[in-house]
Amino acid sequence: MSRQDLLKQRAQQVFPRGIYGHLSTRSMPENYPQFFTSAKGVRMTDVDGKVYIDYMCAFGLNLFGYGDEEINDAFVKQMLKTDTLTGVSEVMVELAERFTGIVTHADWAIFVKNGTDATTLGAMIARAHTKRDKIIIAEGAYHGAAAWCSASPGTTAGERAGRISCTYNDVDSLERAVAEAGNDLAAIFATPFKHDVLIDQAEPDAAYARRARELCDKTGALLVVDDVRAGFKLARDCSWATVGVEPDLSAWGKCIANGHPISALLGSDKARAAAAKIFVTGSFWYAGAPMAAGLATLDLVNNTDYLEKIEGLGERLRVGLHQRAAAQGFSLRQTGPTTMPLFLFDEDPDMRMGFCWSSEMLKRGVYVHPWHNMFLCAAMTEQDIDDALAAAEGAFGALKAQRASLEPVPKLQAIFG
Amino acid sequence: MSRQDLLKQRAQQVFPRGIYGHLSTRSMPENYPQFFTSAKGVRMTDVDGKVYIDYMCAFGLNLFGYGDEEINDAFVKQMLKTDTLTGVSEVMVELAERFTGIVTHADWAIFVKNGTDATTLGAMIARAHTKRDKIIIAEGAYHGAAAWCSASPGTTAGERAGRISCTYNDVDSLERAVAEAGNDLAAIFATPFKHDVLIDQAEPDAAYARRARELCDKTGALLVVDDVRAGFKLARDCSWATVGVEPDLSAWGKCIANGHPISALLGSDKARAAAAKIFVTGSFWYAGAPMAAGLATLDLVNNTDYLEKIEGLGERLRVGLHQRAAAQGFSLRQTGPTTMPLFLFDEDPDMRMGFCWSSEMLKRGVYVHPWHNMFLCAAMTEQDIDDALAAAEGAFGALKAQRASLEPVPKLQAIFG
Repeated sequence: MSRQDLLKQRAQQVFPRGIYGHLSTRSMPENYPQFFTSAKGVRMTDVDGKVYIDYMCAFGLNLFGYGDEEINDAFVKQMLKTDTLTGVSEVMVELAERFTGIVTHADWAIFVKNGTDATTLGAMIARAHTKRDKIIIAEGAYHGAAAWCSASPGTTAGERAGRISCTYNDVDSLERAVAEAGNDLAAIFATPFKHDVLIDQAEPDAAYARRARELCDKTGALLVVDDVRAGFKLARDCSWATVGVEPDLSAWGKCIANGHPISALLGSDKARAAAAKIFVTGSFWYAGAPMAAGLATLDLVNNTDYLEKIEGLGERLRVGLHQRAAAQGFSLRQTGPTTMPLFLFDEDPDMRMGFCWSSEMLKRGVYVHPWHNMFLCAAMTEQDIDDALAAAEGAFGALKAQRASLEPVPKLQAIFG
Repeated sequence: MSRQDLLKQRAQQVFPRGIYGHLSTRSMPENYPQFFTSAKGVRMTDVDGKVYIDYMCAFGLNLFGYGDEEINDAFVKQMLKTDTLTGVSEVMVELAERFTGIVTHADWAIFVKNGTDATTLGAMIARAHTKRDKIIIAEGAYHGAAAWCSASPGTTAGERAGRISCTYNDVDSLERAVAEAGNDLAAIFATPFKHDVLIDQAEPDAAYARRARELCDKTGALLVVDDVRAGFKLARDCSWATVGVEPDLSAWGKCIANGHPISALLGSDKARAAAAKIFVTGSFWYAGAPMAAGLATLDLVNNTDYLEKIEGLGERLRVGLHQRAAAQGFSLRQTGPTTMPLFLFDEDPDMRMGFCWSSEMLKRGVYVHPWHNMFLCAAMTEQDIDDALAAAEGAFGALKAQRASLEPVPKLQAIFG
């Protein structure tokens, strides 16, 4: 038995059904590894010694490369002085000053641990600010794993009662949702672009973003942009700067300390009084070491061309994949920003082709995701892109050979219906 | 202006009202420092260079001393291999095996980040297991900063609707609460002992704990012990092992990696199927480095006499404080386990004496809390206790001199009514 399979068996015993949450490989092709021993830059090595170029980048935590030495040095240096303690470190103030200096709408920050902590705090502050309950969330949008925005078993009808749905980028549906909220609208939440799983991604329609801003101004509700996933991958500011709209609150996480655990809610002065009334806290929220890593990361955001670099690499990948797919008779839809691409095949309603192709990419040492957006990182090189393109050429060929005999994928049917 | 005051001013600008949450010094005596530069063992140094023996131990994160080298080495060694990535490390399985091997009732684990994540997951699993909504929580008990168990502004009536109150250690009130839940009882939550703020702590009544277990068995509800704060400070097992009662779920956090960010929900096989249905996840939940620190911490829990040591030190402190208080005419109530003491003065209904005494302790280099339980840690020595006792002697003398002229404390009146 491979070390991978042995660990999967052991995990099955000590976790409710093996590894849980978004890192579970239960819904991935069979050959996807779950356990790894090391990662550096853009490459990770699994427990059986196989190396992969990683196009998931830890679901967006890794923006400057795994194990970036500058960032890790800042982390360890602070940790050796003090990390968690009965009080806080100067670095907490420095990080808040630096972060609010980068993000245009932000006058203050609250640092938390999970991305979900940041979005949940946004919902609470909007409710405290307006003394109202209703929150508009686009159908299919992910704002975290908490009862107010989740559909998981174990949540109550009362916890979900504040939610009103709309359709992303559809101004009419947004207006209907605002009308449905009546005089009880606390907030409109928005992801910076449509990055739902399993379907094409979509850039934000500027008219939709502007209308969301207007409707909030008209009703007194707060506009919250959930930049946890996309933050700093579209702009050196809140991502809706790309469509000229500033929110009242923005939620950040993932890459803001290049994988070290810290997330943040940023807010404008309008929401300050409400934010001051909320009681939320967490044992590890004040840890200095991730904040020092955050400062080092923001330095790289400010002072390097990382964004132009990953945009260029993403474009090279997009063009190259299109050519290689077309050459073998496939139509591959590549949607979303080039820095956070999603690949879906035309004529593949149950994703059997996408599953097969991803699995063939993995065999060739490239880790792509069949139904979740991916992430580029600044540690990637043109050579890494070209390596992925070479793998893709082989994977398209292998898919072509298997296409007629592909079966539906039961694990996808079971999970997504 | 001191560096401390300068940083407090800067924090006032970039956070909604300065440092937030449980580490805010807003409700502490004026001379309490908010910002620190370093911590090692049981001592921490503030930004103006003053050194304190710390009896808060980061609100219980620090069990084996700040900057413990064995634990930090394990952390850094794992971090340099891989920490957060697109997948998980072998250490995640090892930690779950070790942890469930230590805690008698536990067959599986789910690792999370905040203590609140662990308690909230417990509530969700209980609701999914029973398909019911009501959760019994003792009045004044803290189970985290989430809507289902919080009274913060920004939570909705629907989010709070599942809660039923009882009185800790009062069997009749527990039975009334179960009756009130009717056929909708999902869980009884319990802290291992009564560790509310501002009032005397209380050891658990074994009859209460046993009745909670019986009522859960009778109704099919789950019994959840919230061991986030007290875990491993009363027992090398779930804390209700001390009264012979095993829960279905237990929530852990704080010290399980000696201050590195990881918490856990542990469960028995009875709750496994429900736990397998829940969708929860977090960007940083799978980080390997805190898990490696957790393994090193559990090794110390298993293989050292840390528990007997902190119990002995706590007893030495309790006896010594009693003598020194009495010698100067004070009656100091020291409640809760010796490893997690709370000090309140008799004849001090508005806490002005406690506030003054704590402030005088701080002046003498000893950081105690006037209204929250404290924590001992295994890095403390008898000399540290004796240093605290010497400080206490001086602080009781200073209190005696000021007693007649003490005024009410507005910041306490404002916050606690």
